[in-house]
Amino acid sequence: MEQREIEQFLNGQKRAVEETLSRYMARLRGPETLRRAMAYSLEAGGKRIRPLLLLATVQALGKDPALGLPVAAAVEMIHTYSLIHDDLPSMDNDDLRRGKPTNHKVFGEAMAILAGDALLTYAFQLIAEIDDDRISPPVRLQLIEQLAQAAGPEGMVAGQVADMEGEGKTLSLAELEYIHRHKTGKMLQYSVRAGALIGGASTEQQRELEAFADHLGLAFQIRDDILDIEGAEEKIGKRVGSDRDNNKATYPALLTLAGAKQTLRVHIEEAQRHLRQAKVNGAALAYICELVAARDH
Amino acid sequence: MEQREIEQFLNGQKRAVEETLSRYMARLRGPETLRRAMAYSLEAGGKRIRPLLLLATVQALGKDPALGLPVAAAVEMIHTYSLIHDDLPSMDNDDLRRGKPTNHKVFGEAMAILAGDALLTYAFQLIAEIDDDRISPPVRLQLIEQLAQAAGPEGMVAGQVADMEGEGKTLSLAELEYIHRHKTGKMLQYSVRAGALIGGASTEQQRELEAFADHLGLAFQIRDDILDIEGAEEKIGKRVGSDRDNNKATYPALLTLAGAKQTLRVHIEEAQRHLRQAKVNGAALAYICELVAARDH
Repeated sequence: MEQREIEQFLNGQKRAVEETLSRYMARLRGPETLRRAMAYSLEAGGKRIRPLLLLATVQALGKDPALGLPVAAAVEMIHTYSLIHDDLPSMDNDDLRRGKPTNHKVFGEAMAILAGDALLTYAFQLIAEIDDDRISPPVRLQLIEQLAQAAGPEGMVAGQVADMEGEGKTLSLAELEYIHRHKTGKMLQYSVRAGALIGGASTEQQRELEAFADHLGLAFQIRDDILDIEGAEEKIGKRVGSDRDNNKATYPALLTLAGAKQTLRVHIEEAQRHLRQAKVNGAALAYICELVAARDH
Repeated sequence: MEQREIEQFLNGQKRAVEETLSRYMARLRGPETLRRAMAYSLEAGGKRIRPLLLLATVQALGKDPALGLPVAAAVEMIHTYSLIHDDLPSMDNDDLRRGKPTNHKVFGEAMAILAGDALLTYAFQLIAEIDDDRISPPVRLQLIEQLAQAAGPEGMVAGQVADMEGEGKTLSLAELEYIHRHKTGKMLQYSVRAGALIGGASTEQQRELEAFADHLGLAFQIRDDILDIEGAEEKIGKRVGSDRDNNKATYPALLTLAGAKQTLRVHIEEAQRHLRQAKVNGAALAYICELVAARDH
């Protein structure tokens, strides 16, 4: 695929994800405020990087990416719940997210907690109710089990706790990587892994795609840290320099800014190498990888 | 079964649930504080009424109740997460639960939120990873889908939101029942439904067992409201009279205390009638039903 085709493909998939999310929200019965609070953060935009990774992986394996939409929506719901809870006053106490007031600023703290709980729970429902012979019941169960592992007490939540406990401390590079491998890495890796499961990857392909996702996840986080120093506030939609103000451990603080940029480049190259070794139609995945390295928000 | 046998059976099942919960907690890798926060509330005691309903339903259908232990543990984890989040300062702001300081009082608000998130997520993992031929993959998926429905934005969370939104308002009996059917009823009903699925109930038996659970759930809540007026503080482990102080709609407020007691009795009798119509070995379930009607904490 040429670059223009790849961009068209990814834009089309992003629209499909957003339509899928809207459909899942529209069918919900129950208190209207809850639904609005869930939808507010879910529809606040964002790059949809996790769903796109998932769908591009399905496509890279020669399958219809639409097969991955329910799991892609579930992944985005879990990502969104984690942002809502992270922004709470007792956590990061953020007022802005993607340039808009955070969920609790609009709906209040109690509703924000419940909207997060509801998104997390609904995500599992969406996978369990898949009714498509091309994804067998045992594969659906694997998709659920691995999602819970990636998001739960040994995954994303563990990373969030380690991050909280590391605040104000001097961390080693290994400790910083533990935090990022869990807080953001596990869900990015799950997205690729779920795509591989749905796409029917071989064991060898699965291994290479997971290594791809691991390096991509670390690159993603390093870029985040660099953006906190170099990014323009209006682009990233939140205050820059907040890491330094909060005395947070970051890659630039540990490695210098130049060192962080070099490490970012190494992880991107390693990711691309593993992607080539997976022997898939990896054009869209390679493109996402370069986007992550160069993104300005 | 005689009463003594039933009591022995239920005590044994309660121990089995608690051992199962301990085992699931012990195997967790990750930040120690998170695990302690999760275990603190999970091991804080409680009647384990949901797991017992589930296991007694499996047993009533002539199957080995141990088959139901992973789902029973999952149900208790979800119940526990809901208590942790409900007690938060921005929600009910409770300092005591079962006579002990609430989770956020011990571990702080951020950790309490994360411990709840982790318990909710881990619950789904436990069902997805069941590896027992007697519970087929399609049944495991149904167990997950229905659990998410019972706990999520159309179930327990919807009830919690409706409860919040009803505070300080005069509610009709129908509005009050909506709250309870969702806030506590859905998860009680799921417990019986999951037991029926695992035990291989017929469609007819499922219908009767669900009606049983519906009446039991309402009885449970009415008893709760009565206890808030009549209960002894040291027995229920939290402040009595808090509903009236918080200006909450309750059955006694709507029906008078005598009317609430009569309605409680009607729901218990209806529950027992549906249980008989289910034509199962319902001695332990009938006993739980009477316990609910008479419980003093």
